[in-house]
Amino acid sequence: MFKTVEWKKTGVVMIDPRLLPEKEVYRTYRDYKAVAGAIKDMVVRGAPAIGVSAAMGVALGASKIKAKEIKGFRKEFDKIASLLASTRPTAVNLFWGIERMRKVVEDNSSLAIPELKARLIAEAKEVHREDIEINKLIGKHGGALLKSGSTVLTHCNAGALATAGYGTALGVIRGAIEAGKKISVFADETRPFLQGARLTAWELKKDNIDVTLITDNMAGYIMKKGFIHAVVVGADRIAANGDVANKIGTYSVAILAKEHNIPFYVAAPLSTIDLKIRHGDDIPIEERDSSEVTHMKGKRLAPAGIKVRNPAFDVTPNRLVSGIITEKGVVKAPYVKGLKALFPK
Amino acid sequence: MFKTVEWKKTGVVMIDPRLLPEKEVYRTYRDYKAVAGAIKDMVVRGAPAIGVSAAMGVALGASKIKAKEIKGFRKEFDKIASLLASTRPTAVNLFWGIERMRKVVEDNSSLAIPELKARLIAEAKEVHREDIEINKLIGKHGGALLKSGSTVLTHCNAGALATAGYGTALGVIRGAIEAGKKISVFADETRPFLQGARLTAWELKKDNIDVTLITDNMAGYIMKKGFIHAVVVGADRIAANGDVANKIGTYSVAILAKEHNIPFYVAAPLSTIDLKIRHGDDIPIEERDSSEVTHMKGKRLAPAGIKVRNPAFDVTPNRLVSGIITEKGVVKAPYVKGLKALFPK
Repeated sequence: MFKTVEWKKTGVVMIDPRLLPEKEVYRTYRDYKAVAGAIKDMVVRGAPAIGVSAAMGVALGASKIKAKEIKGFRKEFDKIASLLASTRPTAVNLFWGIERMRKVVEDNSSLAIPELKARLIAEAKEVHREDIEINKLIGKHGGALLKSGSTVLTHCNAGALATAGYGTALGVIRGAIEAGKKISVFADETRPFLQGARLTAWELKKDNIDVTLITDNMAGYIMKKGFIHAVVVGADRIAANGDVANKIGTYSVAILAKEHNIPFYVAAPLSTIDLKIRHGDDIPIEERDSSEVTHMKGKRLAPAGIKVRNPAFDVTPNRLVSGIITEKGVVKAPYVKGLKALFPK
Repeated sequence: MFKTVEWKKTGVVMIDPRLLPEKEVYRTYRDYKAVAGAIKDMVVRGAPAIGVSAAMGVALGASKIKAKEIKGFRKEFDKIASLLASTRPTAVNLFWGIERMRKVVEDNSSLAIPELKARLIAEAKEVHREDIEINKLIGKHGGALLKSGSTVLTHCNAGALATAGYGTALGVIRGAIEAGKKISVFADETRPFLQGARLTAWELKKDNIDVTLITDNMAGYIMKKGFIHAVVVGADRIAANGDVANKIGTYSVAILAKEHNIPFYVAAPLSTIDLKIRHGDDIPIEERDSSEVTHMKGKRLAPAGIKVRNPAFDVTPNRLVSGIITEKGVVKAPYVKGLKALFPK
């Protein structure tokens, strides 16, 4: 199995999904600014993978701080954390990963700097290890919701490539299959970045999981034909009321699922749940460059100078969500209560 | 203004929309087999344009029949009509255009062959002339439904490029603007063939009509933001009960419109209404080559060997249709009665 992101002595190593499915290329990022660039440019994407990479980016940056005492160290640390935090606005795992590293500094500020650096590296590795473990638990809980013989529609890529490994939404599919069930998948291609066509199709095919690719606008047709038994998607941020920010188009899929009486599940770790955000409309939505819509692989698809909207995410209101699958089990409505109960007081 | 399809002494001349928006290329098709190929390969696309081109293809083929008497002429004519009818299954205008030419033969079988050929050419030109006239009437009736200051979402291209000129859905927008109203447009890019990005964006921009391009999966988000006041699309075939076959993704847009209480209008000439088909589920849906989904401009987007579905159309049930805009006025539910009343007994 490929590794999405990995801590190595040379730096943070990431697969470059922009070149998939044609080339499987791994890049080494040797300082925190390069890691920040990789997050911004979507070398790493998917909320859990962004969280892990941010933690590793902080560890990498911190490991190279020259300050000899904690005050100077903290100052440099804040600079590193700020730059990484500024890369993308929607996925809360980014901030979660950085905060987790900041807590290590707070809790160990009396340590000698070299020891503190070692702790930070160990923490980043731990975040990575936990993410896979969490995904497997999500897969176990979510897999139990799927009947053998069913076909799942997924949108974007919430797979091994969006996490440290295994995946959230695709983790649910893997979990069901590991439990002995027969599961087929329809993958929305997910314009404009084509994470479904390039990544979900690639990693499921690699795992010999039955997958059929469709364009985003075919989902309604395929549902009407009775081909889909459940929708499972990931999330970039979940508000305290269960509203879900995820890849653009998720909201449309949720409405289509409701229209066809198909359950719509969201699979995400606790690190994606942001209890500080009460309502989905308060989640910041990133608008990306118009060239993602007007060009593909350097080729122009639309007339020059055309106006474009390119929101990278949308918000699915809680009323359209049948269940949120976490490492601690499946939460159903009412979400305010159910989500709050997941966190220790 | 460009001409989508035109009868010239050298043959049938068509703009090649596959090269738009980058190049405005016109191709001359010198025999009916070449016209059939152009329809099959989507050089000409859009139900009304297909109807006009089929009529011209028949006229072109008939003009070259060598038989000197009507029996031999009819035999050759049937061969020409059959080949043209086999090009694409969904747009009923194809069969309508051919039948209209066949009627000329039936009604004039006593004429000398050269005169019959002249009648056929005249009829094909008349079909072309009428189509523009019909579109302008659709524009007038449909334009009256739109308030000044409103923004219309459209899917695929039901514009000048899909007709002899002016357009059906885009004719409605042009009609409203010609009536002095201020109208903005959002265009779905319309995967896999990108008729929205390549054609709708191009022809509206050329006409200085305010247009914003989005990917198909952004429509729900844009509606939720309150940006859209009406949806107007074309049709490839309308059943007697008002079910509408149109470009894949139309059904999803109709569901999204209903969810957001946005009126969903279909603009189409009477030649698109097929009273012989009682229910939309009986309309044959063309499934096209998987490479349209997996490749773009020769570049691979998905892993080799991936399974793909590529239905070119879907059916929107009548309950989701707020009105069908025809050259004889706007038909509303109950459609069985309203559509039947459009046709002389």
